[in-house]
Amino acid sequence: MDLGELSRQPGEWLAGTGPEADIVISTRVRLARNLAGSSFVPNADAGERHAIAATVSAAIGAAGLADVEYLPLENATRLDRLFLLERHLISKELATGEGDRGVAFNRGEARAIMVNEEDHIRIQALRSGFQPEEAWRDVDEVDSRLERSVGYAFSPEFGYLTACPTNVGTGMRASVMLHLPALVALKQIEKVFQSVSKMRLAVRGLYGEGTQAHGDFYQISNQHTLGRSEQDILGDVSRVVPPIVRYERRARELWAEQDRASLEDRCWRAYGMLSHARRINSEETMDLLSAVRMGVNLRLIPDLPLRAVNDLFIMCQPAHLQKREGQELPDDVRDVARAAFIRDRLSRN
Amino acid sequence: MDLGELSRQPGEWLAGTGPEADIVISTRVRLARNLAGSSFVPNADAGERHAIAATVSAAIGAAGLADVEYLPLENATRLDRLFLLERHLISKELATGEGDRGVAFNRGEARAIMVNEEDHIRIQALRSGFQPEEAWRDVDEVDSRLERSVGYAFSPEFGYLTACPTNVGTGMRASVMLHLPALVALKQIEKVFQSVSKMRLAVRGLYGEGTQAHGDFYQISNQHTLGRSEQDILGDVSRVVPPIVRYERRARELWAEQDRASLEDRCWRAYGMLSHARRINSEETMDLLSAVRMGVNLRLIPDLPLRAVNDLFIMCQPAHLQKREGQELPDDVRDVARAAFIRDRLSRN
Repeated sequence: MDLGELSRQPGEWLAGTGPEADIVISTRVRLARNLAGSSFVPNADAGERHAIAATVSAAIGAAGLADVEYLPLENATRLDRLFLLERHLISKELATGEGDRGVAFNRGEARAIMVNEEDHIRIQALRSGFQPEEAWRDVDEVDSRLERSVGYAFSPEFGYLTACPTNVGTGMRASVMLHLPALVALKQIEKVFQSVSKMRLAVRGLYGEGTQAHGDFYQISNQHTLGRSEQDILGDVSRVVPPIVRYERRARELWAEQDRASLEDRCWRAYGMLSHARRINSEETMDLLSAVRMGVNLRLIPDLPLRAVNDLFIMCQPAHLQKREGQELPDDVRDVARAAFIRDRLSRN
Repeated sequence: MDLGELSRQPGEWLAGTGPEADIVISTRVRLARNLAGSSFVPNADAGERHAIAATVSAAIGAAGLADVEYLPLENATRLDRLFLLERHLISKELATGEGDRGVAFNRGEARAIMVNEEDHIRIQALRSGFQPEEAWRDVDEVDSRLERSVGYAFSPEFGYLTACPTNVGTGMRASVMLHLPALVALKQIEKVFQSVSKMRLAVRGLYGEGTQAHGDFYQISNQHTLGRSEQDILGDVSRVVPPIVRYERRARELWAEQDRASLEDRCWRAYGMLSHARRINSEETMDLLSAVRMGVNLRLIPDLPLRAVNDLFIMCQPAHLQKREGQELPDDVRDVARAAFIRDRLSRN
């Protein structure tokens, strides 16, 4: 797998073609699974981890999953691990972990399987826009295919057994990444969080648990799985997301009605800065891209495809920049390279 | 005189063609004169002011000054007075004063004569770039022509008598408007002020005494005239300005050597904001134009003539915007009109 090649084009799930793609970036469903008869990862020594990785990677190879390749991470560079994290193919935990571990994913990056993260196996399916059922069906299929060659740790009473009690049961987490710039700007986002947390759902930042919300992106996902079926969890997510999408749309409309000049100004200044800056850090880039993304979706900024903006969010991350340049770069050099990359991309549209 | 027409094009002294025009915007020399036998303006009642205005405006008409027209201000609208102030044709004092008063100026606005400001007559000559001798010769010629038909208050001991003691003697003030963005950015501007004040010169903001420095513009002028000849004053200014111009150039070079990316970033972001904002106030406009002006002079921003940038500084002022729109506008509407005007102007270049 050539990550340098990969760094030139993000995954298909960023296409911006799914339902509600103006506000819902992507839907992700993941399943946590563990091999029967092996220690959970936190308790496994190096030898056990090695054996688990061998078993799971062999099972992946045998599962007949189109286009899926396994990438071992124990000897991967820091930069490659950060790159996969930026792409949402692996978690922070897998990126910074130790011992034999890895990730398998297909070319379009809609499917990924982490090995020896917190659990032996973490299967994820990613979809553009709001597609919980489709993502669930996909991850379920991968799960069934893997189960042909490995035995899962399963209790008739509790369901799938996992390293952390919050995942016991279905082992499932369904999460939806939302872009909520107007709710943030109009200071209504806290209300959304309050209503979400009442429904046993959690709000997280862009790169999952413990990460900050940048660029007005928020992930909403279920908190617990014990005692709940896959359909219960999908139902929770399917009930809470559409109203949030409507709130965000309403906030944008209100903003446009009450102070159209300030809304346009916000979007266009962001575009002006991105298309002219000669040095820019990740965080500012995310914030400005957020405003541009809203401007594109509101048709204030014409002629710029949503896909181009979605791509930039990923392509401007530090490891992506460095992979494209073919080397590690100090912060200030990276900020200059990022600005040049953004100008080039925006001038093509 | 049609001020609406005037509002579409600033005076010739902004051409940016004079010596050191990258840093010296303009040179101004003014003479304060009073009619012999009349009360000074502060002590003159309405009738006396009326008589003075009549005498001086008649003298201006008789002086054979090409293209010069007298504009009475006692019945001018607030907007017209603000407009003339923004154009540097009248002072704040004349704009906000009372009673019969006015200003005469020629089409290119290189010459202006205020009537019943602090003194009965204030003659000014404005030149592009650093041209103290030329401005002095010009103002001296106007002075001589006026003196043919009016008698000046003059004391063999003190020289020309003026309403304020600081002007007694030559009645002359020579001032130079400087653009010093790098000295401001590199925090060396205070040092410049200290050395200037040691030389009996004063530093003021863009619109003269008591006004703030916006857009990194500073006026340097002589403080006193008593006991000093016109050539002494011109000599002071001629000695102090060239070193400041060199300091500013050196500061720009240093900035470019030590952190070229930040210098380019400053200039281009300013250009990006100005060419994309949908709402912008005067002050921010000045600050951004200042960075763009430096970028043009350093050839970082090509294809944008210095004249276009100089023009924008004047044309974006509140009264200019409102004169062009043909009506008074509330602040927020003005900010939207300003942004539209700037975008239009920049897109032409």
